[in-house]
Amino acid sequence: MTAPERLQPVGIVGLGLIGGSLALDFKARGHPVLGVARRSQVCEAALARQMVDQASLDLRLLKAAAVIFICTPLQVIEPTVRELVPWLAEATVVTDVGSVKAPIVQQATPLWPNFVGGHPMAGTAEQGLEAAQAGLFQGRAYVLTPTADTPATVIETVASLARSLGSRVYQCTPEAHDQAVAWISHLPVIVSASLLAACEAEPEARVHDLARQLASSGFRDTSRVGGGNPELGLLMARYNREALLQSLHTYRQQLDQLTAWIQDSDWPALEQSLRLMQQVRPTYLDD
Amino acid sequence: MTAPERLQPVGIVGLGLIGGSLALDFKARGHPVLGVARRSQVCEAALARQMVDQASLDLRLLKAAAVIFICTPLQVIEPTVRELVPWLAEATVVTDVGSVKAPIVQQATPLWPNFVGGHPMAGTAEQGLEAAQAGLFQGRAYVLTPTADTPATVIETVASLARSLGSRVYQCTPEAHDQAVAWISHLPVIVSASLLAACEAEPEARVHDLARQLASSGFRDTSRVGGGNPELGLLMARYNREALLQSLHTYRQQLDQLTAWIQDSDWPALEQSLRLMQQVRPTYLDD
Repeated sequence: MTAPERLQPVGIVGLGLIGGSLALDFKARGHPVLGVARRSQVCEAALARQMVDQASLDLRLLKAAAVIFICTPLQVIEPTVRELVPWLAEATVVTDVGSVKAPIVQQATPLWPNFVGGHPMAGTAEQGLEAAQAGLFQGRAYVLTPTADTPATVIETVASLARSLGSRVYQCTPEAHDQAVAWISHLPVIVSASLLAACEAEPEARVHDLARQLASSGFRDTSRVGGGNPELGLLMARYNREALLQSLHTYRQQLDQLTAWIQDSDWPALEQSLRLMQQVRPTYLDD
Repeated sequence: MTAPERLQPVGIVGLGLIGGSLALDFKARGHPVLGVARRSQVCEAALARQMVDQASLDLRLLKAAAVIFICTPLQVIEPTVRELVPWLAEATVVTDVGSVKAPIVQQATPLWPNFVGGHPMAGTAEQGLEAAQAGLFQGRAYVLTPTADTPATVIETVASLARSLGSRVYQCTPEAHDQAVAWISHLPVIVSASLLAACEAEPEARVHDLARQLASSGFRDTSRVGGGNPELGLLMARYNREALLQSLHTYRQQLDQLTAWIQDSDWPALEQSLRLMQQVRPTYLDD
């Protein structure tokens, strides 16, 4: 990348955890950063922390941006693109950071051909501008989901910005992205929430009390994402319903298979499966 | 407790993680500690680390012990009690540390009336004498599972020793213990292993690759116990088969319910359930 390209003015809509962290990193790298939020206190806080050069409640501020990151909740992405379009110069690149891609890409691409879907896989338990931090995307995956019609320059513009954050950039179809995150992000939420729901269904009070008293690290880890933010879990299920249902269908088959081995006391089969799972798990976690 | 009671000679069979850690703590508190292991290298290592006062391959060493902790794998507990019995003074208290209680208590109690089942809920990812550490039981749950016939003095002897380790001591029937640990320890293993098995069943190579590349902390936590030690998982399923099957049955009902809400796009019902799970999870983890 050449120096002038690094200095493209960057616009950010939605100054929460992801938008705020992007602002911090782009500003640190020398980009002019323009931020738009829904509440004036957020604009003021972003200016006070010097995360942005200018902030506004008005999307027209972003006329001057060469690349715009939409960092709003999933259900607000499409309306935001629609509102932005009248103010954009023809070459402006628009991307988003939503955790589901197919419905977003289907909605946004017809509105703005220079749109490419994106998903930086970074997050913390906290949300909001206060949780924003420099270096959040360092070493993390950043997935871009172009369609067959997305201009190569649009993809490369966002890819190069993502690489400048220290992210590992992946590229795939919106549908492949959605099925992959259904496996590793959305299915775990339902699997884990079902564990909590099952424990709560124990009919004997003394056993239920004892379970709560004895739960330790194994239960803590397995129940974590199921006991997490319900709004996020709900949005993922709504927006990624088809892929999640596909994953749930396969999950239930596997659960039934393991249950059948236990029912039949087929210990060699159960042992072989548990041994295989011990071997495959590190292939998911070598980053 | 009075001082002389604290100085009862303690015998330990099986000098692995749990047995070795018990030895360290009891020795530090002034008890004479006698250790029995299956391999002479382990006896030598325990003596070298000054975890025990005497060590032997021969159970007869434990004639002098007032309380004996059997810290062998589950399937060796009953044969160990059987082998010990001819050498024991009538008042000797015998306990074990197995993670499943009903079958152990059923087998051991007829062999030795002064037996009480126990389960210190402590562990690490490592195993063996090298992993033994002082203070492992501090602040952790220690469950005792007497029957209606267990002498009160036997229960109190072991409870008082467990409290001296800093453990929170609970008392319940072997059956209540087994159902409680099925919920919080054994069910999570199968739920988590099924998640790995389901992800491995993804038929499209590019989606499978992408899932492995994108997996991060949520997947790491939810898959941890399912990708753990297969021997432990197998033993838990074998010894706690009935209670685990009961938990799996309820789990599948809950999973099917959540799946049905997603299938039916019944978002208010899903949101209410996820919201409830967020509220109940801390009641399992307030220790």
